[in-house]
Amino acid sequence: MKTYNYDKSTEWFKRAVKAIPCGVYGHFSPAPYVPIDAYPFFSNRAQGARFWDVDGNEFIDYMCAYGPMVLGYAHPDVDAAFEAQWRQSDANSVASPCMIELAEMLIDMVPVAEWAFFARNGADVTNLSVMVARAATNRKKIIAIKGGYHGTTPWMQAPGHHGVIPEDHEHLIRIPWNDIAALKQVIADHGDDIAGFIATPYHHPVFADNALPADGYWQQVTELLHKNGSLVIVDDVRAGFRLHMGGSNEKYGFKPDLICFSKAIANGYALSALVGTEALRVDAAKVFHTGSFWFCAGSMAAAMACLKTLQEQRGPELMAALGKQLTDGIVEIAANHGYTMKVTGEMAMPYLRITDDDNVMLQQNWCGECTKRGAFFTSHHNWFLSTAHTEDDIKHTLDICDDAFKALKEQS
Amino acid sequence: MKTYNYDKSTEWFKRAVKAIPCGVYGHFSPAPYVPIDAYPFFSNRAQGARFWDVDGNEFIDYMCAYGPMVLGYAHPDVDAAFEAQWRQSDANSVASPCMIELAEMLIDMVPVAEWAFFARNGADVTNLSVMVARAATNRKKIIAIKGGYHGTTPWMQAPGHHGVIPEDHEHLIRIPWNDIAALKQVIADHGDDIAGFIATPYHHPVFADNALPADGYWQQVTELLHKNGSLVIVDDVRAGFRLHMGGSNEKYGFKPDLICFSKAIANGYALSALVGTEALRVDAAKVFHTGSFWFCAGSMAAAMACLKTLQEQRGPELMAALGKQLTDGIVEIAANHGYTMKVTGEMAMPYLRITDDDNVMLQQNWCGECTKRGAFFTSHHNWFLSTAHTEDDIKHTLDICDDAFKALKEQS
Repeated sequence: MKTYNYDKSTEWFKRAVKAIPCGVYGHFSPAPYVPIDAYPFFSNRAQGARFWDVDGNEFIDYMCAYGPMVLGYAHPDVDAAFEAQWRQSDANSVASPCMIELAEMLIDMVPVAEWAFFARNGADVTNLSVMVARAATNRKKIIAIKGGYHGTTPWMQAPGHHGVIPEDHEHLIRIPWNDIAALKQVIADHGDDIAGFIATPYHHPVFADNALPADGYWQQVTELLHKNGSLVIVDDVRAGFRLHMGGSNEKYGFKPDLICFSKAIANGYALSALVGTEALRVDAAKVFHTGSFWFCAGSMAAAMACLKTLQEQRGPELMAALGKQLTDGIVEIAANHGYTMKVTGEMAMPYLRITDDDNVMLQQNWCGECTKRGAFFTSHHNWFLSTAHTEDDIKHTLDICDDAFKALKEQS
Repeated sequence: MKTYNYDKSTEWFKRAVKAIPCGVYGHFSPAPYVPIDAYPFFSNRAQGARFWDVDGNEFIDYMCAYGPMVLGYAHPDVDAAFEAQWRQSDANSVASPCMIELAEMLIDMVPVAEWAFFARNGADVTNLSVMVARAATNRKKIIAIKGGYHGTTPWMQAPGHHGVIPEDHEHLIRIPWNDIAALKQVIADHGDDIAGFIATPYHHPVFADNALPADGYWQQVTELLHKNGSLVIVDDVRAGFRLHMGGSNEKYGFKPDLICFSKAIANGYALSALVGTEALRVDAAKVFHTGSFWFCAGSMAAAMACLKTLQEQRGPELMAALGKQLTDGIVEIAANHGYTMKVTGEMAMPYLRITDDDNVMLQQNWCGECTKRGAFFTSHHNWFLSTAHTEDDIKHTLDICDDAFKALKEQS
């Protein structure tokens, strides 16, 4: 199987490092991509489940823009809805009625939602959720999960990160995932100052196996927090609308007070939403939180088309089935080559790791070999399925995986 | 002159309050609009310097989407650039080369810029600027201006705001604008822990007269801060590219270390940028700051077209001249009716206030009367000119202003 060259990507990257810190920064940064020469860094074409890099190499994309792409790039219905709204009005000095229509749609679709608030970034609404929790409880402390990610606002970054100061974490208490004893201890120690608990619906850290909620975990969490007069916030930015159309909490059978959505809500258009219960409506209204582009209407029209299409396609079931086909196939192929592939998390956004290694070298090399053959995989982050991936795409991907394992064997 | 009805806006607003906290929140909220029945709250059509509300009322728009619209809504060149990029690739799993091209354009255009970093909200980059300042100095405290606004992240909100806790302001020191003595005192008291000073290029608070920098103010600020080993950050989110194409600091003859841009950079598409000096490149690269949509390429292509067009049109000079025509006219008309209108700030984004009143009632009523006649004015916030406003628009606006003063007289 032919492997790709990245000559133009490399040229662009040399230009990028002169103009942009890191060249490409944040979660798009090349830093976690090892071996670096296995990856493309620039693209100007994407369609369906594929993108093409600046060298013309074609990739079946299992990162889906790190989550936002859920129906395939350039989905015709979503793009038509965006375009129709955009041609009428996008930025404006007053709001568009489509903001109300989208709020009403979320209220219909998401059982917890009795109101909705819109912003641009996932972090805009994780930050708002904390402000609402503090406002509603008149308390300060927030419990979060060790290794959990809710954006790069300093309070949520790991202590010691560049530009973050210890005081940023003064009222943040991190406990292990699935650890009810730790939660009880924190409530015993700080109960009367705990505003809320924030976590993703299941634990999907980077560079580590993902973990589903233990049986009864979320039910105990909500019971303990509510008994303590504290709020439960689900950060569904990454998983939202991939696992369940009503919010990922519905899949696990519990009701939080606030849910943060973003990534997949509008199939790639920048939008985020906080939804919450009636009890929190007034506090949400009193918190002042705003941004210059938060009322741009095009992405809201896109969101309505995206959610409608996902629902019609039974998107979460479809992505779970595709993810199962992919990961079952990879596990089997790995075994055929004498490797053990561990699959964790939800199959619509699985996390994979070769276990036959003390470090992540094997996994990194194998993901690089797959990428160089046209299956865009990261080694450190969960992957994403979309409804645009087909069974044939996955069969072709499994051929790539097979060839990548051969290459891995030859290297060892 | 006929005044407008807002029947459909009112119906939509009744629907909105059921679905969305406040109905319309943040800086778009009706709360500051008094009298509330003078204002439209929903629109789905905007073109050039105008928007039309859901009742079909036409407004010459002096809020310009609160700043983002700088060339007129639906500007053909900007929208064509957006559309061409969007049809190729917007969200994607890897970056677009146009991110590099835009960074290079800013480096060429903005003397301070030796690198650029892109995000979506203005607050994304004001937050990053503070993280970079803390990282580069290994210090904690940030000096800001009383009444200054840098977004709604808790550290920047006024103490006591809903959802904000005292610790959010632990390392923020606010001093009055144009007060060098206060700045010297803060440096004397906390010099070895001051990471940076953040301010807008001139002081443009809401509900208060705006104030230009006193002669030599910024030169003294930069000298004092740099001598202290601290950084100078200009928050040019609101004024950037309306006063000067090289950053508003160029108009006032000084060089900060970091400049935050957003609003007008892409004529309404969601985008923000932090630019900075070579000395800060490595620290900017080390700070981890990212967002799901920060690499969406459409808005970057739009920004290049917007900045090119603004430069060709000599946008800042044109908007200053239009603003002067408008405000000179209003001052004169006010005087004819026996009122004194005070105009402050820069004429491309002037702040106006009727001084013949102890409170803001007269100003509120007059702005309402203007809006009901088709000139969309707020009473509490600076207005914005765009290059799409014409001399004829302003003449028509002045007729509206005249009629509004007559109505004001009749009410008193």
